[in-house]
Order: sequence, then structure tokens, then C-alpha cells
Amino acid sequence: MIIVEKYGGTSVGDVDRIKNVARRVKKSYDEGHKMVVIVSARSGVTNELIARAKAITPHPDEREMDTLMTCGEQETIALTALALQSMGVPAISRTGPRAGFKTDGNHMRARIQDITGGDIPELLEEGKVVVVAGFQGLSPDGEVTTMGRGGSDLSAIALAKGVNADLCRINTDVDGVYTADPRIVPDARKLNEIHYEEMLELASAGSKVMQSRAVEFASKYNVPFEVRSSFNENPGTIVKEEVASMEDILVNGVAVDKNQTRIGVSHLPDRPGAAAKVFNALAEAGVLVDMIVQNVGREGSANITFTVPKDDTYKAESALTEALKDFDGATAQTIGDIAKVSVVGLGMRSHSGVAAKLFDALAKASINIEMITTSEIKISVAISLEQADEAVRVAHAAFDLG
Amino acid sequence: MIIVEKYGGTSVGDVDRIKNVARRVKKSYDEGHKMVVIVSARSGVTNELIARAKAITPHPDEREMDTLMTCGEQETIALTALALQSMGVPAISRTGPRAGFKTDGNHMRARIQDITGGDIPELLEEGKVVVVAGFQGLSPDGEVTTMGRGGSDLSAIALAKGVNADLCRINTDVDGVYTADPRIVPDARKLNEIHYEEMLELASAGSKVMQSRAVEFASKYNVPFEVRSSFNENPGTIVKEEVASMEDILVNGVAVDKNQTRIGVSHLPDRPGAAAKVFNALAEAGVLVDMIVQNVGREGSANITFTVPKDDTYKAESALTEALKDFDGATAQTIGDIAKVSVVGLGMRSHSGVAAKLFDALAKASINIEMITTSEIKISVAISLEQADEAVRVAHAAFDLG
Repeated sequence: MIIVEKYGGTSVGDVDRIKNVARRVKKSYDEGHKMVVIVSARSGVTNELIARAKAITPHPDEREMDTLMTCGEQETIALTALALQSMGVPAISRTGPRAGFKTDGNHMRARIQDITGGDIPELLEEGKVVVVAGFQGLSPDGEVTTMGRGGSDLSAIALAKGVNADLCRINTDVDGVYTADPRIVPDARKLNEIHYEEMLELASAGSKVMQSRAVEFASKYNVPFEVRSSFNENPGTIVKEEVASMEDILVNGVAVDKNQTRIGVSHLPDRPGAAAKVFNALAEAGVLVDMIVQNVGREGSANITFTVPKDDTYKAESALTEALKDFDGATAQTIGDIAKVSVVGLGMRSHSGVAAKLFDALAKASINIEMITTSEIKISVAISLEQADEAVRVAHAAFDLG
Repeated sequence: MIIVEKYGGTSVGDVDRIKNVARRVKKSYDEGHKMVVIVSARSGVTNELIARAKAITPHPDEREMDTLMTCGEQETIALTALALQSMGVPAISRTGPRAGFKTDGNHMRARIQDITGGDIPELLEEGKVVVVAGFQGLSPDGEVTTMGRGGSDLSAIALAKGVNADLCRINTDVDGVYTADPRIVPDARKLNEIHYEEMLELASAGSKVMQSRAVEFASKYNVPFEVRSSFNENPGTIVKEEVASMEDILVNGVAVDKNQTRIGVSHLPDRPGAAAKVFNALAEAGVLVDMIVQNVGREGSANITFTVPKDDTYKAESALTEALKDFDGATAQTIGDIAKVSVVGLGMRSHSGVAAKLFDALAKASINIEMITTSEIKISVAISLEQADEAVRVAHAAFDLG
């Protein structure tokens, strides 16, 4: 069968790990499978490249950043192909653009528009193992683009769809999806399977296992995939549409995102379109706004508080300065970094009382809630960074996840 | 005017040096020139990448090596463009393939077939400074290729031709072309100008200033260029067709190449076509044979001794093993590394006695000559590595170059 599998930056972190990846791929290849391997940049490389760019200019041009950052995976595909060849496996590398990843022109956060797979189907027919650079694509203008951090997961799932793979494996540095981060909660449990939507909420809630866009894509095109470890042969967690007896479980996991900044906008006129103008400006600047709280103040003006990814703070501030010019007296202020703790479970759809139970548990631990957002299967609270780990442990215990 | 200039690996070795390059480019840009800047990989980067590949497999596939090595310049073009932008210069980067370098499919030693300049003329019209990755091109199959070590010089001269530049500057870590390597000969002198052919012979004789293919290209298309330092504003050496009063000077420089290995083929049948078969096999393997000495031995068999670049030793041995199968008793043996010392000068064309003077000087210094080759304007001798520097000093003094 056709297997598309992805190895992240930690899994290809040095020459020995690359050889380890090659051995694992060879095993599947020797079993008769047609293998496509998506790799990331070696861990640390992307950060080194960014650090070099920032040593030159604090806010580097995003087009040039994409040209810079794609070096990372380009190195890994070549080294991985060489490692496979040295084991007698006929491997060939492909950059993202050549593997047919067509994206929009939004540099550093490009969205996949089409994935043709390039000449990968022919190469697989010829018996080749194809090693593909994750994270990269080609814009309509012929510019190389990157899909943002964690884009390799998206590359893998999109390519699994693009080449009609029978199986997609996301190999990573964890054994699978856990009820919480085991480094924070010692008695966290590995889940055997999980629904796309739960995985999605966990990802958007800051669980570092996978990027949410990758899971969205998998859900939209119904691409089941397995999250498992690069370093052992243990079964991982299957993420898919049909999950057995999940309705009975109220909460399936607790996630935390420590990478958000809270921004407040004060004295915005309380009239239709004012808030829209603010969030349109942020959207146009490519800033992903997460939690939003609005309340009407005195004298007909509104205050809005929202969170953005920490890295987008500067972009958000610039966009706001521009957008608020039209509103006399309206001001934006970066309040500071916060943590978002979320409980996630399909079971919430049919059960009430989850929010109450969570708030009660946090209150008993003297943890103050700054903001609250909810979805059908998730409740998130913004709290201070210092209390984040304690909040995760408290929630994990409150829902008997251990 | 349009200036194409090249900065090598040492000149862009770290972030500060890249900023220095940007400042120099900005100066010319501010003077109103249209600037195209060719850059190499940061010094050391290519070697690091090769070391990683060799840690995986001793004889890596050349296609994958090209994918691997092109990361080096890709990083530099992005960082250089960012540095220029941070100084207010509208810069944009282009990889070799996108800059229109069309090469053959000979990986790691690709030859330029055509240089269109891509969209560089339009970008220059728009007032952009274009930063181009040297060393890289695109094969007819759409594979990225590299032109071999020092290919960035070739890129610069080819692009100067491709965009009809008014001036081509090769910025490097030396002040220009010297009568000999000043590290070996303390009283070596910088030359103000030098003819293409002399430069060519110096390059092929191992003078590290420039790669001979770049000079060949410049000579063929009559692209004058200046070799000068990246680190100061001193005038360099102009390399061109018309050089004043050069006929009077017997010898213009002494060069040394310490990067050659001597290989001997014994018991080759002394019949037409035998030697041709040997050298055809080496040519097909892409091995550049340099000095060749043949002598007919007893019993109608011939011995041939020749030198190849040290890095090609393995390829040469493989090609010879295959080629000698048809000749009973013929054997190839790698004799060892040697140094080639050459004296070069246009004046040799019209003067005799240069060889005698050189041999005499070496003999007086007790330096044994293993092989001799001559061209119209160059005499080269192969000697032991240990005596190389002494031979250069002796030759430099013998021809009063100090």
C-alpha cells in the first residue's frame, strides 16, 4: 500500500537520527509498501536561520524569510535520501514546490490551494522512495512559500490525500495523544483513538502534538492518520472520523497554550462596524485572533480584549494603530502574556455541567479566570502564565482522566 | 551603469560581513548604478553540508548533493537581501534557477548552457537591487545543479554577459592578482592588469584567486572584470583582453597547486587507441586530467603517468578499473599527492630560455622535477608537496618578480 509518513525536526535532528528514520522507512519499504516520507528541518535549524535574519533586521521581509527558511528542509531531504540510498533503497528527494504543493502568496503562513503530488505517483511506480520537504510550497507568482510552524504535518496529510495514500503516519517525539502533557501531569494516559474534532480542539488549545490546520485538513478530506513516536515501535493514537464509544466520555483531554498575548482596545465607539473594522484590520495583517471578550463601557464606548499568538504581537500593534486612527480616543494596549487552558471532549455535546465542574475546580485551587471561550466540545479559560501547569493538573484530576 | 559584482564565502562569512557587503552595495546603488550582487554560501557552510553527507555515506549521490549544497547560497541571498532592505535599499533575492542559469545535467560540475537573466532586467528597471545565488543552475530535466567549487565566479561573469553589464567586479579575500601567493613569497607584488590567458593559466595552475572556467568564459565572451578585496576600497587587478606593454615581461606570476594526485597506469599495450580508451573513460567519469607523461616500456607496453584533482581520485580509480579490464596485465596505481608549480607570462610567446632558467633555479635548490608540461605561456613542473613553497620562492626570485 501507499504510506505517507512524516518525521519532524526532532526525529531528523542529527545524522544518526536521520539514519534511524531511514532504517524505519526501509523496514516498511522492504515489506512491499510504496513510501513517501515528509521531513522537516533539523530541530534548531529554523530557529538559527531566524536568529541570523533578526540579527540583521528586527522585522525581516517575509518573502526573503521564506527563501531563507526553506533551506532547512532542503538539507534534510537530501540527507535522508542519501541515508536511504546508503542502505540500498532507491530514494529521491523533492522540494515542496517540485512535489506540487501549490499555495497562496501569503508568505510565512501560506495556505495550500492544490496538491498535485508532482511526479510522485510515477516515481512510486518506478519503485522509488520519495523524500519530500514539508512546510514548503509555491505561490501563483512562482515564489517559494512556507506554511508556518508545524506546516510539515499539513504537508503530510495533504500529500496523503494528493497521492491517495492508504495510510498516513505522523511520527513525532511523543508516543501519541495524551489526556494531558505528561511532563505537567504525571498520570496522563495515552489515548488509542480520538476524533478529528477533539484533536482539532486540542491543537487549537495549544497541545503541541500537531498543528490545527493539519487536523482541519484531515477532517475536511477524511484522511485518517496515526500519531506515533519516531523512536520506538509502540502503537500511537489513531485520529479519525468514527471513534468507538466516545460519547460516554465527557472530557478526553486537557491542553494548555502558553504562547498567547492579551491585547485590549479601549474607548471604541459602540456602534455597528467598529469592532468589525478592528478585526478586519487584524485579519488583513494575517494575525490569528483567538479568545475575544467585549463589554460596553460608560458613555457609549466599548472595550474589547482579545488574544493573539505572541509572535504576532508586533503585527497586531501595527495593524491596530492604523485601524484606530478613525476612532477618536480609541487606544490599543498590549496587556501581557497569558496561558489558555482547555478541556476537550466530544461528550460535552450531550452533557451539561462541564463548565461548572471546571470553574469549580479552578476556584478551589485559587486560580483566577481572566477570559472564557467555549465551543461545542471545548471550554477554554485564560489564566496567568504562572498558574498554567497547576490549572492543567487540577482540570485533569477533576475529570478523572488519570 | 549596470554593475554585476560577486562576493565569495569569506566575504559573507557571518552576519557582520553580510552587513558590510550590503553597505558596499548600497554605496554603488546610491551613486545611481543598477546593481546585481552574486553571493556564495557563507564560508564553511558548504563543507559542513558535505561533512554531514559523508557522515551518512562515503560516496553520496551527486543529484542529492546538489540539492543539499544549494542550501548554502539560498541562505546567503535571503540574508543579504534583508541586510540591504534594512538599509533602505529595495532588494530582492533570486536563486540560480530563477535567475535563468540553464546548465547541463552534470551534477556537482554542471556547465552553463544559457544564461537568460530571468526577470533581472525588469527588476533592475524597477530600481531593485537583485541578489543572486551563485554556483547554482537548473538542468534540462528541471533538477537543481551546481557548477563545482568556485562556480560563483563563473555565475558572476556569465550574468555580467547575460544582462549586458558595464562592469563586473569579483570581490574576494585578496587585494588582486599577485605575482605569487604573498603568504609563500613575502615580496610578491600586486599586478594592475593581467591578460585573460595569463589569469587562465594562473587559475589552472592552482592560483586560488579564481576558478579557471570563470576566466575562460570571460575570455570567450570578452567580459573584462576586476578582482579586488571585499574588505577595503583599494583598486584591484583588471583582467582583460588588451594589456599594455606586457610583451616585455617574461613571466608575470608563479602559481602552485597542492591539490593533485598522481596516478600511474602500467603495462598498457603500446597500440593506437589504448591511451585514448583510458582517457575517454576518465572523461566520461567527469575526471579532469591535468599533467600527462607517457613512455613506452619494454615488450611493447606503455606506462602513462598523469595527475587528477585529489577529490576525483576515487572516481578515477573506479573508471580505470573498468577501462583496464580489456587490457591483459595493465594496472593502475595511485602514486600519491604532488604539487604543481607553474610560471606564467604572455612574454614567453616571444622569448625562449624560460624553461631552462626555471629548471636551473630548481636544480640549484635541489628540487627534483617529477613531471613537466608546457603551454604557450606557461611551464609547469610536478614536484614533491614538501618542496612546493620553496620552489615557488625560488622561481619568483629567478624571474625578478619581487
